[in-house]
Amino acid sequence: MIICAMNGAESLIRTLIAGRVEVCFTNPGTSEIHLVAALDRLPEIRCVLGLFEGVVTASADGYARMAEKPACTLLHLGPGVGNGLANLHNASRAHTPMVNIIGQHATYHLRHDTPLISDIEGIARPYSKWLRTSRSAAELGHDAAEAITAARTAPGEIATLIVPADVAWSEGGIVALVPGRTAPPAPDMHAVERAARMLKSGLRTAILLSGNALYGKALQTAGQIAVATGAKLFAPYPISRLERGAGIAPVERVQYILEVAVEQLKEYRQMILVGAQPPVAYFAAPGKNAVLTPEGCDMHTLATPGEDYLAGIEALADALSVRAGRDVAEKSERPSLPHGAITLQGLAACVGALLPENAIVVDESMTSGRGMMAATRSAPPHDWLGNTGGSIGIALPLAVGAAIACARSGHRKVLCLTADGSAMYTNQALWTMAREGLEITTVVFANRDYAVLKREFSYLGVGEPGPRALDLFEIGRPDLDWVHLAKGMGVPATRVSSLEDFARELWKGFESEGPRLIEVPL
Amino acid sequence: MIICAMNGAESLIRTLIAGRVEVCFTNPGTSEIHLVAALDRLPEIRCVLGLFEGVVTASADGYARMAEKPACTLLHLGPGVGNGLANLHNASRAHTPMVNIIGQHATYHLRHDTPLISDIEGIARPYSKWLRTSRSAAELGHDAAEAITAARTAPGEIATLIVPADVAWSEGGIVALVPGRTAPPAPDMHAVERAARMLKSGLRTAILLSGNALYGKALQTAGQIAVATGAKLFAPYPISRLERGAGIAPVERVQYILEVAVEQLKEYRQMILVGAQPPVAYFAAPGKNAVLTPEGCDMHTLATPGEDYLAGIEALADALSVRAGRDVAEKSERPSLPHGAITLQGLAACVGALLPENAIVVDESMTSGRGMMAATRSAPPHDWLGNTGGSIGIALPLAVGAAIACARSGHRKVLCLTADGSAMYTNQALWTMAREGLEITTVVFANRDYAVLKREFSYLGVGEPGPRALDLFEIGRPDLDWVHLAKGMGVPATRVSSLEDFARELWKGFESEGPRLIEVPL
Repeated sequence: MIICAMNGAESLIRTLIAGRVEVCFTNPGTSEIHLVAALDRLPEIRCVLGLFEGVVTASADGYARMAEKPACTLLHLGPGVGNGLANLHNASRAHTPMVNIIGQHATYHLRHDTPLISDIEGIARPYSKWLRTSRSAAELGHDAAEAITAARTAPGEIATLIVPADVAWSEGGIVALVPGRTAPPAPDMHAVERAARMLKSGLRTAILLSGNALYGKALQTAGQIAVATGAKLFAPYPISRLERGAGIAPVERVQYILEVAVEQLKEYRQMILVGAQPPVAYFAAPGKNAVLTPEGCDMHTLATPGEDYLAGIEALADALSVRAGRDVAEKSERPSLPHGAITLQGLAACVGALLPENAIVVDESMTSGRGMMAATRSAPPHDWLGNTGGSIGIALPLAVGAAIACARSGHRKVLCLTADGSAMYTNQALWTMAREGLEITTVVFANRDYAVLKREFSYLGVGEPGPRALDLFEIGRPDLDWVHLAKGMGVPATRVSSLEDFARELWKGFESEGPRLIEVPL
Repeated sequence: MIICAMNGAESLIRTLIAGRVEVCFTNPGTSEIHLVAALDRLPEIRCVLGLFEGVVTASADGYARMAEKPACTLLHLGPGVGNGLANLHNASRAHTPMVNIIGQHATYHLRHDTPLISDIEGIARPYSKWLRTSRSAAELGHDAAEAITAARTAPGEIATLIVPADVAWSEGGIVALVPGRTAPPAPDMHAVERAARMLKSGLRTAILLSGNALYGKALQTAGQIAVATGAKLFAPYPISRLERGAGIAPVERVQYILEVAVEQLKEYRQMILVGAQPPVAYFAAPGKNAVLTPEGCDMHTLATPGEDYLAGIEALADALSVRAGRDVAEKSERPSLPHGAITLQGLAACVGALLPENAIVVDESMTSGRGMMAATRSAPPHDWLGNTGGSIGIALPLAVGAAIACARSGHRKVLCLTADGSAMYTNQALWTMAREGLEITTVVFANRDYAVLKREFSYLGVGEPGPRALDLFEIGRPDLDWVHLAKGMGVPATRVSSLEDFARELWKGFESEGPRLIEVPL
């Protein structure tokens, strides 16, 4: 331990720096002033302001998915965490490492009944795997080190550290050493051997990958196993990060709609899970079985969340004597640029035709974007980030975080595909894009509907929605004008009325050195 | 009990109707479809869509403050409540009656690990005085009746009822009778007698009112007591609803800034609390005493939250033999319309000059609006609603709820005064104003700052903020353009550059049959 004369706040920030936390996404308040003052003095951490806390938490999520290490958030008391919860929900489902720092009143102030008193631990607990209120300036550095260690624990956890104002402002802070990241345990050899036997059985087998098994070396090796054994690689519908495109092992996404997913999976007698859960529909429907795999499908876990997916996949390749070099990768091929009136297929073709190499696609396009993955499967290699928890309103800020994570790694353009309904929840992220000059092209599919709900209404067997239900599913009357909204937050924007328009604006977006937004009326 | 053949959802909505719940503020999802279907069939409840749940909960708060009865909200699973929490925090501090209906997955679906599973009870608990997950269609109506009863319990509570989808869609629903609202208990006679003795003692005495003691008969009687005894009426800084203006008993608001409040209260040797807590600064500061009353100030509770404030005040008037008719009310007087360049004082004078009779002022103008109450004290009678919990982002949706509550009671124009930083958190409320055609004039004070934080930085003794701290306190770069933002959500808007402009636009707003927004660059 390094002992200096500093207050708790400074020891906290210095410990974060020691733990290689490089970015703080924040919306601070009075109870965090001393932490802001410490950040003010220590330029090693980049501070990024969000004008709403749901922007802050989803940005930290997007950052960690790309950087493979935690950012921290700095939030104001219970309501600050509250505003961030929905995207903490999504982050927790993505197993995103994250360190939340939440200010609290001075300990001796809590005996008064003042307006901002709340049960911060209670609010943070549902999404915090690790949770602590720091008790003294001397312990704060150590608490922060533990929070970082917890966040880094495979497959990634949300750690929340609550910092009373007097703990932050009192002298006696001690910077703690942060232990290096330890490798997660390798999967059990019996689990590996059983998976190998399944793959040698000749039965149709699906391998459902998740987390970091969906990119890099793990995906490459899984691809080789698939080639050697005839198994097929799948990703769950809620994708945290998927590497794909020309030269990458093909992975099929389990579809959202129950009947489509059942059809997709019906031939598989066996499924091997790598960090994933057995695929089940998001929602139950009266009289329907929500399990997506066929009855009797033999479900086997190769690696549980928290185990080393790469080690498990490599051990499986060894057990099968799979050799490197026998990849079957997506070919390199782009759709040609389409013309004419806007269609969902045409929009997808434009994206397939123009997506830059190394792009990051953030996808919350909902019902409007269902053709996007097919149209981009053979585009140059790129990463695909999705909504992992089903709480809509993640795309814009997730794009912010992804762009900031990759700001130093050459030119990784971000394409953010969002539905209009989804984008409204966290529209404030556009302002952060503008302030930080992020190279994000946002496409808003403006169908003026919560189209999913319209569909579900009939699907759940309650007939056709009447006018009062439609009022709750249709978000027109008045129509949202995304060109105005974006301009209001400093993001240049345009509305397109043909596929030529769209292609030109998309290109302009990819060439731009700052954010742009394209509204696509549907 | 009335037994009909209906599903749980219908029994729930019919019980709400039986309990005189007339408005449902909502942002529903798939798990609430059967509840939406029931609302679709039953037009007695007006459904109001918000495009973000913080809009929904604050609208329900604004509604209840004016209607003096609960609205219900309908929210989607854990993330839906999460998004609503910050304004539930404010509502809980306002003691607002509210019934939250939260959808949950079908009970048998919870054994799967699907993306939207969350600890809904855990998320809702910190702000729900009454909380239950309904177990069956047969019990749902009864649960709803209990929730309404809980919400109505004085001084007003937040009740949260979680409804699994299969409980909603199963047959066997039973509409429950909702017991009439019972009067809260009257304060203890000893408390009344002690208060009477204090007021007769000749010592300077403050009476700190809250809740429904700040309007109507209770305020009028408190005003008579003040006249008879020389006591002074105060409201806490966080005002839920204050009736004021010409002809109304004058009430002074305890100021936000510690030193100002201490000065304001320094002569009072005694304080009588009516539902209020002893006044304490929002935040602790190193080396400062947060208690706002002078040392040795004799603090006495006439009525605790949950007791009948009106009965307590009337009993006190009786004990003091205070006679009606001896009111000292605010005189009727308006400032004259100012001219020239924009100043905070000039803006306040314009509001004072033009505020319509019976207006509802929703005030979250923060540092920019500190002159507003002084300039309007002798304006025609009006209600003043404030931020009660210190979680900023309440004004726009609070105005929505207040406007809807008063839609049927003649022409009550709503003036919504908001800071730019605050308004961003729940900017989606503008869309609801447009959709519902609400007569709300929103004034955005655009100082491009979290000005409170800039001030607190120096105040807390950490020197002057450096450039990195200023980046977190200044919300310009780029400037938010509220004219574009409002237009993007269907609200006509304009930017003013002089006091003449402001007065003209304010007038236009008050004359308008729908919402308007005025951006005031500062």
